[in-house]
Amino acid sequence: MSDMEITEQHRVHGGQLSFVRHYSDATASPMAFSIFVPDGAGPFPALYWLSGLTCSATNFTEKAGAYGHASKLGLIIVAPDTSPRGSDIANDPASDLGQGAGFYVDATQAPWKAHFQMETYIVRDLIATVEAGFPVDPARRGISGHSMGGHGALTIAMNNAHLFHSVSAFAPISSAMRSPWGEKALAAYLGNDHAAWERYDAALLLAQGHSKAFDTILIDQGEADPFIDSQLMPDLLEQAAATAGQKLVLRYREGYDHSYYFIQSFIADHLRFHAERLKQAAKEKMTA
Amino acid sequence: MSDMEITEQHRVHGGQLSFVRHYSDATASPMAFSIFVPDGAGPFPALYWLSGLTCSATNFTEKAGAYGHASKLGLIIVAPDTSPRGSDIANDPASDLGQGAGFYVDATQAPWKAHFQMETYIVRDLIATVEAGFPVDPARRGISGHSMGGHGALTIAMNNAHLFHSVSAFAPISSAMRSPWGEKALAAYLGNDHAAWERYDAALLLAQGHSKAFDTILIDQGEADPFIDSQLMPDLLEQAAATAGQKLVLRYREGYDHSYYFIQSFIADHLRFHAERLKQAAKEKMTA
Repeated sequence: MSDMEITEQHRVHGGQLSFVRHYSDATASPMAFSIFVPDGAGPFPALYWLSGLTCSATNFTEKAGAYGHASKLGLIIVAPDTSPRGSDIANDPASDLGQGAGFYVDATQAPWKAHFQMETYIVRDLIATVEAGFPVDPARRGISGHSMGGHGALTIAMNNAHLFHSVSAFAPISSAMRSPWGEKALAAYLGNDHAAWERYDAALLLAQGHSKAFDTILIDQGEADPFIDSQLMPDLLEQAAATAGQKLVLRYREGYDHSYYFIQSFIADHLRFHAERLKQAAKEKMTA
Repeated sequence: MSDMEITEQHRVHGGQLSFVRHYSDATASPMAFSIFVPDGAGPFPALYWLSGLTCSATNFTEKAGAYGHASKLGLIIVAPDTSPRGSDIANDPASDLGQGAGFYVDATQAPWKAHFQMETYIVRDLIATVEAGFPVDPARRGISGHSMGGHGALTIAMNNAHLFHSVSAFAPISSAMRSPWGEKALAAYLGNDHAAWERYDAALLLAQGHSKAFDTILIDQGEADPFIDSQLMPDLLEQAAATAGQKLVLRYREGYDHSYYFIQSFIADHLRFHAERLKQAAKEKMTA
Protein backbone atom coordinates (compact mmCIF):
# COMPACT_ATOMS: atom_id res chain seq x y z
CA MET A 1 0.00 0.00 0.00
CA SER A 2 1.41 3.37 -0.96
CA ASP A 3 1.31 6.49 1.12
CA MET A 4 -1.94 8.27 1.75
CA GLU A 5 -2.58 11.78 0.51
CA ILE A 6 -4.80 14.25 2.37
CA THR A 7 -6.79 16.01 -0.34
CA GLU A 8 -8.93 18.34 1.79
CA GLN A 9 -9.12 19.34 5.45
CA HIS A 10 -11.64 21.26 7.53
CA ARG A 11 -11.85 22.10 11.16
CA VAL A 12 -15.29 21.09 12.45
CA HIS A 13 -16.85 20.82 15.92
CA GLY A 14 -13.57 20.86 17.80
CA GLY A 15 -11.85 18.28 15.62
CA GLN A 16 -10.21 17.79 12.26
CA LEU A 17 -11.97 16.37 9.20
CA SER A 18 -9.70 15.05 6.44
CA PHE A 19 -10.48 13.64 3.03
CA VAL A 20 -7.89 11.01 2.19
CA ARG A 21 -6.84 9.32 -1.06
CA HIS A 22 -4.79 6.14 -0.83
CA TYR A 23 -3.89 3.19 -3.03
CA SER A 24 -5.57 -0.12 -2.19
CA ASP A 25 -3.98 -3.41 -3.22
CA ALA A 26 -7.36 -5.09 -2.83
CA THR A 27 -9.13 -2.88 -5.37
CA ALA A 28 -5.91 -2.26 -7.35
CA SER A 29 -6.88 1.39 -7.53
CA PRO A 30 -6.88 4.64 -5.56
CA MET A 31 -9.64 4.83 -2.96
CA ALA A 32 -11.14 7.76 -1.05
CA PHE A 33 -12.41 8.14 2.50
CA SER A 34 -13.11 10.87 5.03
CA ILE A 35 -11.99 10.73 8.66
CA PHE A 36 -12.98 12.90 11.61
CA VAL A 37 -10.49 13.02 14.48
CA PRO A 38 -11.48 14.79 17.73
CA ASP A 39 -8.99 17.07 19.43
CA GLY A 40 -6.98 15.48 22.24
CA ALA A 41 -4.31 12.90 22.78
CA GLY A 42 -6.00 9.71 21.69
CA PRO A 43 -5.82 6.92 20.82
CA PHE A 44 -9.55 7.03 20.07
CA PRO A 45 -12.03 4.29 19.24
CA ALA A 46 -13.10 4.41 15.59
CA LEU A 47 -16.48 3.94 13.96
CA TYR A 48 -16.48 2.85 10.31
CA TRP A 49 -19.50 4.16 8.38
CA LEU A 50 -20.51 2.42 5.15
CA SER A 51 -22.70 4.46 2.80
CA GLY A 52 -25.52 3.45 0.49
CA LEU A 53 -26.08 3.20 -3.27
CA THR A 54 -24.83 6.18 -5.33
CA CYS A 55 -23.02 7.67 -2.32
CA SER A 56 -19.38 8.71 -2.14
CA ALA A 57 -17.40 9.60 0.97
CA THR A 58 -19.05 13.02 1.06
CA ASN A 59 -22.72 12.18 1.69
CA PHE A 60 -22.29 11.11 5.31
CA THR A 61 -19.56 13.67 5.85
CA GLU A 62 -21.69 16.63 4.76
CA LYS A 63 -25.18 15.56 5.75
CA ALA A 64 -25.18 13.28 8.81
CA GLY A 65 -24.57 15.95 11.45
CA ALA A 66 -22.40 13.45 13.33
CA TYR A 67 -19.25 15.32 14.25
CA GLY A 68 -20.53 17.42 17.15
CA HIS A 69 -21.57 14.23 18.90
CA ALA A 70 -18.37 12.38 17.90
CA SER A 71 -16.31 15.23 19.32
CA LYS A 72 -18.08 14.99 22.70
CA LEU A 73 -17.81 11.20 22.74
CA GLY A 74 -14.13 11.14 21.67
CA LEU A 75 -14.91 9.01 18.62
CA ILE A 76 -13.12 8.88 15.27
CA ILE A 77 -15.46 8.34 12.30
CA VAL A 78 -14.20 6.90 9.00
CA ALA A 79 -16.46 7.10 5.93
CA PRO A 80 -15.11 5.33 2.82
CA ASP A 81 -16.34 5.64 -0.73
CA THR A 82 -18.72 2.88 -1.86
CA SER A 83 -16.54 1.54 -4.70
CA PRO A 84 -13.44 2.14 -6.76
CA ARG A 85 -13.89 5.02 -9.23
CA GLY A 86 -12.57 6.20 -12.56
CA SER A 87 -12.71 5.78 -16.31
CA ASP A 88 -10.51 2.64 -16.17
CA ILE A 89 -12.80 0.91 -13.64
CA ALA A 90 -15.73 -1.24 -14.86
CA ASN A 91 -19.11 0.44 -14.55
CA ASP A 92 -22.76 0.04 -15.39
CA PRO A 93 -25.13 2.86 -16.33
CA ALA A 94 -27.63 1.71 -13.68
CA SER A 95 -27.28 3.28 -10.24
CA ASP A 96 -27.47 -0.11 -8.50
CA LEU A 97 -24.41 -1.76 -10.11
CA GLY A 98 -20.77 -0.78 -10.61
CA GLN A 99 -19.29 2.50 -9.41
CA GLY A 100 -21.14 3.75 -6.32
CA ALA A 101 -22.66 0.30 -5.81
CA GLY A 102 -19.89 -2.03 -4.60
CA PHE A 103 -22.20 -3.82 -2.11
CA TYR A 104 -19.13 -4.52 0.08
CA VAL A 105 -18.45 -7.87 -1.61
CA ASP A 106 -15.32 -9.40 -3.13
CA ALA A 107 -16.34 -9.95 -6.76
CA THR A 108 -15.41 -13.17 -8.52
CA GLN A 109 -16.85 -12.40 -11.96
CA ALA A 110 -15.48 -10.41 -14.91
CA PRO A 111 -15.39 -7.50 -15.48
CA TRP A 112 -15.88 -6.69 -11.80
CA LYS A 113 -13.31 -8.90 -10.09
CA ALA A 114 -10.32 -6.79 -11.18
CA HIS A 115 -11.27 -3.91 -8.87
CA PHE A 116 -14.49 -4.61 -6.93
CA GLN A 117 -12.91 -6.23 -3.84
CA MET A 118 -14.74 -4.08 -1.36
CA GLU A 119 -14.91 -6.46 1.61
CA THR A 120 -11.15 -6.97 1.58
CA TYR A 121 -10.67 -3.25 0.96
CA ILE A 122 -12.62 -2.36 4.11
CA VAL A 123 -11.30 -5.03 6.48
CA ARG A 124 -7.67 -4.95 5.32
CA ASP A 125 -6.54 -1.89 3.38
CA LEU A 126 -8.84 0.78 4.81
CA ILE A 127 -8.30 -0.26 8.43
CA ALA A 128 -4.52 -0.55 7.86
CA THR A 129 -4.28 2.92 6.34
CA VAL A 130 -6.43 4.48 9.04
CA GLU A 131 -4.49 2.82 11.85
CA ALA A 132 -1.10 3.71 10.35
CA GLY A 133 -2.01 7.35 9.80
CA PHE A 134 -4.33 8.41 12.62
CA PRO A 135 -4.50 8.05 16.44
CA VAL A 136 -6.84 5.05 16.47
CA ASP A 137 -6.96 2.34 19.10
CA PRO A 138 -6.95 -0.91 17.05
CA ALA A 139 -8.68 -2.71 19.92
CA ARG A 140 -11.79 -0.55 19.60
CA ARG A 141 -13.58 -0.57 16.23
CA GLY A 142 -17.29 -0.23 15.52
CA ILE A 143 -19.13 -0.40 12.21
CA SER A 144 -22.39 1.07 10.97
CA GLY A 145 -23.97 2.10 7.70
CA HIS A 146 -27.07 2.97 5.70
CA SER A 147 -29.11 0.88 3.23
CA MET A 148 -26.52 -0.93 1.04
CA GLY A 149 -24.03 0.23 3.68
CA GLY A 150 -26.22 -1.17 6.46
CA HIS A 151 -26.04 -4.50 4.65
CA GLY A 152 -22.27 -3.94 4.42
CA ALA A 153 -21.91 -3.15 8.12
CA LEU A 154 -23.93 -6.19 9.22
CA THR A 155 -22.28 -8.68 6.87
CA ILE A 156 -18.74 -7.39 7.39
CA ALA A 157 -19.21 -7.38 11.17
CA MET A 158 -20.53 -10.94 11.22
CA ASN A 159 -17.92 -12.25 8.76
CA ASN A 160 -15.08 -10.47 10.59
CA ALA A 161 -16.27 -10.46 14.18
CA HIS A 162 -12.67 -10.50 15.47
CA LEU A 163 -12.19 -6.99 14.01
CA PHE A 164 -15.23 -5.17 15.43
CA HIS A 165 -16.76 -4.66 18.87
CA SER A 166 -20.05 -3.01 17.95
CA VAL A 167 -22.42 -2.96 14.99
CA SER A 168 -25.51 -0.97 14.06
CA ALA A 169 -27.35 0.05 10.89
CA PHE A 170 -29.86 2.50 9.45
CA ALA A 171 -32.45 1.01 7.09
CA PRO A 172 -30.20 -1.87 6.01
CA ILE A 173 -30.86 -4.24 3.12
CA SER A 174 -31.62 -7.11 5.48
CA SER A 175 -31.34 -9.94 3.01
CA ALA A 176 -29.40 -9.13 -0.16
CA MET A 177 -30.41 -12.51 -1.66
CA ARG A 178 -34.08 -11.57 -1.37
CA SER A 179 -33.80 -7.86 -2.31
CA PRO A 180 -34.01 -6.96 -6.05
CA TRP A 181 -31.06 -4.56 -5.59
CA GLY A 182 -29.02 -7.26 -3.88
CA GLU A 183 -29.97 -10.06 -6.28
CA LYS A 184 -28.85 -8.00 -9.27
CA ALA A 185 -25.55 -7.06 -7.61
CA LEU A 186 -24.76 -10.52 -6.24
CA ALA A 187 -25.50 -12.13 -9.62
CA ALA A 188 -23.19 -9.67 -11.39
CA TYR A 189 -20.36 -9.75 -8.84
CA LEU A 190 -20.52 -13.41 -7.73
CA GLY A 191 -22.22 -15.28 -10.59
CA ASN A 192 -25.19 -17.59 -10.43
CA ASP A 193 -24.04 -20.04 -7.72
CA HIS A 194 -26.19 -18.96 -4.79
CA ALA A 195 -23.91 -20.73 -2.31
CA ALA A 196 -21.39 -17.95 -2.95
CA TRP A 197 -24.03 -15.34 -2.11
CA GLU A 198 -24.66 -16.58 1.42
CA ARG A 199 -21.63 -14.79 2.84
CA TYR A 200 -23.33 -11.52 1.88
CA ASP A 201 -26.81 -12.00 3.29
CA ALA A 202 -27.22 -10.36 6.69
CA ALA A 203 -30.38 -12.21 7.74
CA LEU A 204 -28.85 -15.56 6.79
CA LEU A 205 -25.60 -14.90 8.70
CA LEU A 206 -27.63 -13.75 11.69
CA ALA A 207 -29.84 -16.86 11.65
CA GLN A 208 -26.69 -18.99 11.43
CA GLY A 209 -25.36 -17.46 14.66
CA HIS A 210 -22.51 -15.35 13.28
CA SER A 211 -23.42 -12.39 15.49
CA LYS A 212 -22.57 -13.97 18.85
CA ALA A 213 -19.65 -11.58 19.45
CA PHE A 214 -22.06 -8.64 19.67
CA ASP A 215 -24.19 -8.16 22.78
CA THR A 216 -26.77 -6.09 20.88
CA ILE A 217 -27.38 -5.08 17.28
CA LEU A 218 -29.04 -1.65 16.93
CA ILE A 219 -31.15 -0.82 13.88
CA ASP A 220 -33.29 2.22 13.06
CA GLN A 221 -35.83 2.03 10.25
CA GLY A 222 -38.08 4.83 8.99
CA GLU A 223 -41.71 3.78 8.63
CA ALA A 224 -42.16 6.13 5.64
CA ASP A 225 -39.14 4.63 3.86
CA PRO A 226 -40.33 3.83 0.32
CA PHE A 227 -38.00 0.80 0.12
CA ILE A 228 -39.03 -0.90 3.35
CA ASP A 229 -41.14 -3.72 1.84
CA SER A 230 -39.54 -4.04 -1.59
CA GLN A 231 -35.81 -3.93 -0.75
CA LEU A 232 -35.06 -3.66 2.99
CA MET A 233 -37.41 -6.14 4.74
CA PRO A 234 -36.36 -5.52 8.35
CA ASP A 235 -38.75 -8.24 9.55
CA LEU A 236 -36.30 -10.79 8.11
CA LEU A 237 -33.67 -9.54 10.57
CA GLU A 238 -36.11 -9.80 13.44
CA GLN A 239 -36.96 -13.39 12.52
CA ALA A 240 -33.28 -14.30 12.14
CA ALA A 241 -32.39 -12.72 15.50
CA ALA A 242 -35.16 -14.72 17.16
CA THR A 243 -33.85 -17.90 15.53
CA ALA A 244 -30.30 -17.20 16.73
CA GLY A 245 -31.25 -15.85 20.16
CA GLN A 246 -29.47 -12.60 19.30
CA LYS A 247 -30.54 -9.37 20.99
CA LEU A 248 -31.65 -7.02 18.22
CA VAL A 249 -33.05 -3.56 18.95
CA LEU A 250 -35.06 -2.61 15.86
CA ARG A 251 -36.78 0.75 16.16
CA TYR A 252 -39.42 1.80 13.65
CA ARG A 253 -39.49 5.60 13.35
CA GLU A 254 -42.89 7.01 12.40
CA GLY A 255 -42.84 9.43 9.49
CA TYR A 256 -39.14 9.11 8.69
CA ASP A 257 -37.97 8.21 5.17
CA HIS A 258 -34.77 6.79 3.62
CA SER A 259 -32.81 10.07 3.43
CA TYR A 260 -29.98 11.61 5.42
CA TYR A 261 -32.67 13.69 7.19
CA PHE A 262 -33.63 10.38 8.85
CA ILE A 263 -30.00 9.50 9.58
CA GLN A 264 -29.15 12.89 11.09
CA SER A 265 -32.17 12.58 13.39
CA PHE A 266 -30.86 9.42 15.09
CA ILE A 267 -27.12 9.40 14.47
CA ALA A 268 -26.42 10.63 18.03
CA ASP A 269 -28.13 7.52 19.44
CA HIS A 270 -25.97 5.26 17.28
CA LEU A 271 -22.76 7.08 18.18
CA ARG A 272 -23.57 6.71 21.90
CA PHE A 273 -24.38 3.02 21.35
CA HIS A 274 -20.97 2.45 19.77
CA ALA A 275 -19.07 4.66 22.23
CA GLU A 276 -20.45 2.75 25.22
CA ARG A 277 -19.46 -0.61 23.74
CA LEU A 278 -16.04 0.58 22.63
CA LYS A 279 -15.35 2.00 26.09
CA GLN A 280 -16.25 -1.42 27.48
CA ALA A 281 -13.88 -3.07 24.97
CA ALA A 282 -11.03 -0.94 26.31
CA LYS A 283 -11.81 -1.96 29.91
CA GLU A 284 -11.89 -5.62 28.95
CA LYS A 285 -8.52 -5.29 27.27
CA MET A 286 -7.01 -3.66 30.38
CA THR A 287 -8.27 -6.37 32.71
CA ALA A 288 -7.44 -9.23 30.32
CA MET B 1 -49.02 36.04 -4.92
CA SER B 2 -50.27 32.66 -6.05
CA ASP B 3 -50.55 29.58 -3.90
CA MET B 4 -47.47 27.84 -2.68
CA GLU B 5 -46.62 24.29 -3.70
CA ILE B 6 -44.77 21.87 -1.41
CA THR B 7 -42.32 20.05 -3.68
CA GLU B 8 -40.61 17.78 -1.13
CA GLN B 9 -41.09 16.88 2.53
CA HIS B 10 -38.99 15.03 5.08
CA ARG B 11 -39.46 14.26 8.72
CA VAL B 12 -36.31 15.32 10.58
CA HIS B 13 -35.39 15.69 14.27
CA GLY B 14 -38.97 15.68 15.54
CA GLY B 15 -40.25 18.20 13.01
CA GLN B 16 -41.25 18.61 9.38
CA LEU B 17 -38.97 19.95 6.66
CA SER B 18 -40.68 21.19 3.51
CA PHE B 19 -39.29 22.52 0.26
CA VAL B 20 -41.69 25.13 -1.11
CA ARG B 21 -42.12 26.72 -4.53
CA HIS B 22 -44.18 29.90 -4.77
CA TYR B 23 -44.66 32.80 -7.16
CA SER B 24 -43.17 36.13 -6.12
CA ASP B 25 -44.55 39.39 -7.50
CA ALA B 26 -41.28 41.09 -6.53
CA THR B 27 -39.09 38.81 -8.65
CA ALA B 28 -41.88 38.13 -11.19
CA SER B 29 -40.90 34.49 -11.07
CA PRO B 30 -41.28 31.29 -9.06
CA MET B 31 -39.03 31.17 -6.00
CA ALA B 32 -37.91 28.28 -3.77
CA PHE B 33 -37.30 27.99 -0.04
CA SER B 34 -37.07 25.33 2.63
CA ILE B 35 -38.83 25.57 5.99
CA PHE B 36 -38.38 23.48 9.12
CA VAL B 37 -41.37 23.43 11.51
CA PRO B 38 -40.99 21.75 14.92
CA ASP B 39 -43.76 19.50 16.19
CA GLY B 40 -46.25 21.16 18.53
CA ALA B 41 -48.97 23.74 18.51
CA GLY B 42 -47.08 26.92 17.69
CA PRO B 43 -47.09 29.68 16.71
CA PHE B 44 -43.30 29.57 16.66
CA PRO B 45 -40.71 32.28 16.23
CA ALA B 46 -38.97 32.08 12.83
CA LEU B 47 -35.36 32.52 11.85
CA TYR B 48 -34.69 33.51 8.23
CA TRP B 49 -31.38 32.16 6.92
CA LEU B 50 -29.79 33.83 3.88
CA SER B 51 -27.22 31.73 2.03
CA GLY B 52 -24.02 32.68 0.24
CA LEU B 53 -22.79 32.84 -3.35
CA THR B 54 -23.66 29.81 -5.54
CA CYS B 55 -25.99 28.39 -2.87
CA SER B 56 -29.60 27.35 -3.33
CA ALA B 57 -32.13 26.52 -0.61
CA THR B 58 -30.52 23.12 -0.13
CA ASN B 59 -27.02 23.98 1.14
CA PHE B 60 -28.09 25.14 4.58
CA THR B 61 -30.89 22.59 4.68
CA GLU B 62 -28.61 19.61 4.07
CA LYS B 63 -25.34 20.71 5.67
CA ALA B 64 -25.90 23.07 8.61
CA GLY B 65 -26.98 20.47 11.16
CA ALA B 66 -29.45 23.01 12.54
CA TYR B 67 -32.72 21.16 12.93
CA GLY B 68 -32.01 19.13 16.06
CA HIS B 69 -31.28 22.37 17.90
CA ALA B 70 -34.24 24.17 16.28
CA SER B 71 -36.53 21.36 17.37
CA LYS B 72 -35.41 21.68 21.01
CA LEU B 73 -35.67 25.49 20.90
CA GLY B 74 -39.10 25.52 19.18
CA LEU B 75 -37.77 27.56 16.27
CA ILE B 76 -38.91 27.61 12.65
CA ILE B 77 -36.07 28.06 10.14
CA VAL B 78 -36.71 29.42 6.64
CA ALA B 79 -33.92 29.15 4.03
CA PRO B 80 -34.69 30.84 0.69
CA ASP B 81 -32.84 30.44 -2.58
CA THR B 82 -30.28 33.18 -3.30
CA SER B 83 -31.91 34.43 -6.53
CA PRO B 84 -34.60 33.77 -9.11
CA ARG B 85 -33.71 30.85 -11.38
CA GLY B 86 -34.42 29.57 -14.87
CA SER B 87 -33.60 29.91 -18.55
CA ASP B 88 -35.78 33.02 -18.88
CA ILE B 89 -33.97 34.83 -16.02
CA ALA B 90 -30.87 36.96 -16.73
CA ASN B 91 -27.61 35.30 -15.78
CA ASP B 92 -23.85 35.69 -15.94
CA PRO B 93 -21.36 32.86 -16.36
CA ALA B 94 -19.38 34.07 -13.32
CA SER B 95 -20.34 32.58 -9.97
CA ASP B 96 -20.50 36.03 -8.32
CA LEU B 97 -23.20 37.62 -10.49
CA GLY B 98 -26.68 36.62 -11.61
CA GLN B 99 -28.36 33.36 -10.63
CA GLY B 100 -27.12 32.18 -7.23
CA ALA B 101 -25.71 35.67 -6.54
CA GLY B 102 -28.63 38.02 -5.91
CA PHE B 103 -26.82 39.87 -3.10
CA TYR B 104 -30.24 40.62 -1.51
CA VAL B 105 -30.59 43.93 -3.39
CA ASP B 106 -33.41 45.42 -5.50
CA ALA B 107 -31.74 45.85 -8.89
CA THR B 108 -32.33 49.04 -10.88
CA GLN B 109 -30.29 48.19 -13.97
CA ALA B 110 -31.09 46.12 -17.06
CA PRO B 111 -31.09 43.20 -17.57
CA TRP B 112 -31.28 42.49 -13.84
CA LYS B 113 -34.10 44.74 -12.68
CA ALA B 114 -36.84 42.58 -14.26
CA HIS B 115 -36.35 39.77 -11.73
CA PHE B 116 -33.53 40.53 -9.25
CA GLN B 117 -35.63 42.24 -6.55
CA MET B 118 -34.29 40.14 -3.72
CA GLU B 119 -34.66 42.59 -0.82
CA THR B 120 -38.36 43.08 -1.57
CA TYR B 121 -38.71 39.36 -2.17
CA ILE B 122 -37.37 38.55 1.30
CA VAL B 123 -39.09 41.27 3.33
CA ARG B 124 -42.45 41.16 1.53
CA ASP B 125 -43.20 38.05 -0.52
CA LEU B 126 -41.22 35.42 1.39
CA ILE B 127 -42.41 36.55 4.81
CA ALA B 128 -46.01 36.82 3.57
CA THR B 129 -45.97 33.30 2.10
CA VAL B 130 -44.36 31.83 5.20
CA GLU B 131 -46.77 33.53 7.58
CA ALA B 132 -49.83 32.60 5.49
CA GLY B 133 -48.84 28.94 5.20
CA PHE B 134 -47.08 27.98 8.43
CA PRO B 135 -47.61 28.43 12.20
CA VAL B 136 -45.30 31.43 12.58
CA ASP B 137 -45.65 34.21 15.13
CA PRO B 138 -45.30 37.40 13.02
CA ALA B 139 -44.12 39.29 16.11
CA ARG B 140 -41.00 37.13 16.41
CA ARG B 141 -38.62 37.07 13.43
CA GLY B 142 -34.85 36.73 13.42
CA ILE B 143 -32.43 36.83 10.50
CA SER B 144 -29.00 35.33 9.91
CA GLY B 145 -26.85 34.21 7.02
CA HIS B 146 -23.45 33.30 5.63
CA SER B 147 -20.99 35.32 3.53
CA MET B 148 -23.14 37.08 0.85
CA GLY B 149 -26.07 35.98 3.03
CA GLY B 150 -24.42 37.44 6.13
CA HIS B 151 -24.26 40.74 4.22
CA GLY B 152 -27.92 40.15 3.32
CA ALA B 153 -28.95 39.47 6.92
CA LEU B 154 -27.17 42.53 8.30
CA THR B 155 -28.36 44.97 5.61
CA ILE B 156 -31.93 43.67 5.51
CA ALA B 157 -32.16 43.75 9.32
CA MET B 158 -30.85 47.32 9.51
CA ASN B 159 -32.99 48.56 6.59
CA ASN B 160 -36.11 46.82 7.91
CA ALA B 161 -35.59 46.90 11.65
CA HIS B 162 -39.37 46.96 12.26
CA LEU B 163 -39.58 43.43 10.84
CA PHE B 164 -36.85 41.66 12.83
CA HIS B 165 -35.97 41.24 16.50
CA SER B 166 -32.56 39.57 16.25
CA VAL B 167 -29.70 39.46 13.77
CA SER B 168 -26.50 37.44 13.45
CA ALA B 169 -24.10 36.35 10.72
CA PHE B 170 -21.39 33.86 9.81
CA ALA B 171 -18.40 35.30 7.94
CA PRO B 172 -20.42 38.15 6.39
CA ILE B 173 -19.25 40.45 3.61
CA SER B 174 -18.92 43.38 6.00
CA SER B 175 -18.75 46.15 3.44
CA ALA B 176 -20.09 45.25 0.00
CA MET B 177 -18.83 48.59 -1.37
CA ARG B 178 -15.26 47.68 -0.42
CA SER B 179 -15.38 43.95 -1.29
CA PRO B 180 -14.50 42.96 -4.90
CA TRP B 181 -17.48 40.55 -4.93
CA GLY B 182 -19.79 43.30 -3.68
CA GLU B 183 -18.42 46.04 -5.94
CA LYS B 184 -18.99 43.91 -9.02
CA ALA B 185 -22.53 42.98 -7.97
CA LEU B 186 -23.56 46.48 -6.85
CA ALA B 187 -22.22 48.02 -10.08
CA ALA B 188 -24.17 45.50 -12.18
CA TYR B 189 -27.41 45.63 -10.20
CA LEU B 190 -27.44 49.32 -9.17
CA GLY B 191 -25.26 51.12 -11.72
CA ASN B 192 -22.36 53.45 -11.08
CA ASP B 193 -24.00 55.95 -8.70
CA HIS B 194 -22.39 54.96 -5.41
CA ALA B 195 -25.08 56.78 -3.42
CA ALA B 196 -27.45 53.96 -4.43
CA TRP B 197 -25.00 51.40 -3.06
CA GLU B 198 -25.02 52.75 0.48
CA ARG B 199 -28.26 50.96 1.38
CA TYR B 200 -26.42 47.68 0.83
CA ASP B 201 -23.24 48.20 2.84
CA ALA B 202 -23.47 46.64 6.30
CA ALA B 203 -20.55 48.53 7.86
CA LEU B 204 -21.87 51.85 6.56
CA LEU B 205 -25.41 51.23 7.85
CA LEU B 206 -23.96 50.16 11.20
CA ALA B 207 -21.77 53.29 11.49
CA GLN B 208 -24.83 55.40 10.62
CA GLY B 209 -26.72 53.95 13.60
CA HIS B 210 -29.28 51.80 11.78
CA SER B 211 -28.79 48.89 14.20
CA LYS B 212 -30.23 50.55 17.31
CA ALA B 213 -33.22 48.17 17.42
CA PHE B 214 -30.89 45.24 18.15
CA ASP B 215 -29.36 44.84 21.60
CA THR B 216 -26.48 42.73 20.26
CA ILE B 217 -25.23 41.63 16.85
CA LEU B 218 -23.55 38.20 16.91
CA ILE B 219 -20.91 37.30 14.32
CA ASP B 220 -18.67 34.24 13.98
CA GLN B 221 -15.67 34.37 11.67
CA GLY B 222 -13.22 31.56 10.93
CA GLU B 223 -9.59 32.59 11.20
CA ALA B 224 -8.61 30.17 8.41
CA ASP B 225 -11.26 31.62 6.08
CA PRO B 226 -9.44 32.34 2.78
CA PHE B 227 -11.69 35.35 2.08
CA ILE B 228 -11.26 37.14 5.40
CA ASP B 229 -8.92 39.93 4.23
CA SER B 230 -9.87 40.15 0.56
CA GLN B 231 -13.68 40.06 0.72
CA LEU B 232 -15.10 39.89 4.25
CA MET B 233 -13.10 42.41 6.34
CA PRO B 234 -14.78 41.88 9.72
CA ASP B 235 -12.65 44.64 11.26
CA LEU B 236 -14.80 47.15 9.33
CA LEU B 237 -17.84 45.96 11.30
CA GLU B 238 -15.95 46.30 14.58
CA GLN B 239 -14.94 49.84 13.73
CA ALA B 240 -18.49 50.74 12.65
CA ALA B 241 -19.97 49.25 15.82
CA ALA B 242 -17.55 51.31 17.91
CA THR B 243 -18.55 54.44 15.98
CA ALA B 244 -22.25 53.75 16.55
CA GLY B 245 -21.94 52.49 20.13
CA GLN B 246 -23.54 49.20 19.02
CA LYS B 247 -22.79 46.03 20.98
CA LEU B 248 -21.21 43.61 18.52
CA VAL B 249 -19.96 40.16 19.57
CA LEU B 250 -17.43 39.14 16.93
CA ARG B 251 -15.79 35.79 17.62
CA TYR B 252 -12.74 34.70 15.68
CA ARG B 253 -12.63 30.88 15.49
CA GLU B 254 -9.13 29.45 15.22
CA GLY B 255 -8.64 26.97 12.39
CA TYR B 256 -12.15 27.25 10.94
CA ASP B 257 -12.66 28.08 7.25
CA HIS B 258 -15.52 29.45 5.09
CA SER B 259 -17.41 26.16 4.63
CA TYR B 260 -20.55 24.66 6.11
CA TYR B 261 -18.24 22.64 8.40
CA PHE B 262 -17.59 25.99 10.12
CA ILE B 263 -21.28 26.87 10.14
CA GLN B 264 -22.40 23.51 11.56
CA SER B 265 -19.85 23.89 14.37
CA PHE B 266 -21.44 27.09 15.72
CA ILE B 267 -25.02 27.08 14.43
CA ALA B 268 -26.34 25.94 17.84
CA ASP B 269 -24.93 29.10 19.46
CA HIS B 270 -26.64 31.29 16.89
CA LEU B 271 -29.97 29.51 17.22
CA ARG B 272 -29.85 29.96 21.00
CA PHE B 273 -28.94 33.64 20.53
CA HIS B 274 -32.00 34.17 18.33
CA ALA B 275 -34.33 32.01 20.45
CA GLU B 276 -33.52 34.00 23.60
CA ARG B 277 -34.21 37.32 21.89
CA LEU B 278 -37.38 36.09 20.19
CA LYS B 279 -38.69 34.76 23.50
CA GLN B 280 -38.05 38.21 24.96
CA ALA B 281 -39.91 39.80 22.02
CA ALA B 282 -42.97 37.68 22.85
CA LYS B 283 -42.86 38.77 26.51
CA GLU B 284 -42.59 42.42 25.51
CA LYS B 285 -45.60 42.04 23.24
CA MET B 286 -47.66 40.50 26.09
CA THR B 287 -46.81 43.27 28.53
CA ALA B 288 -47.20 46.06 25.97
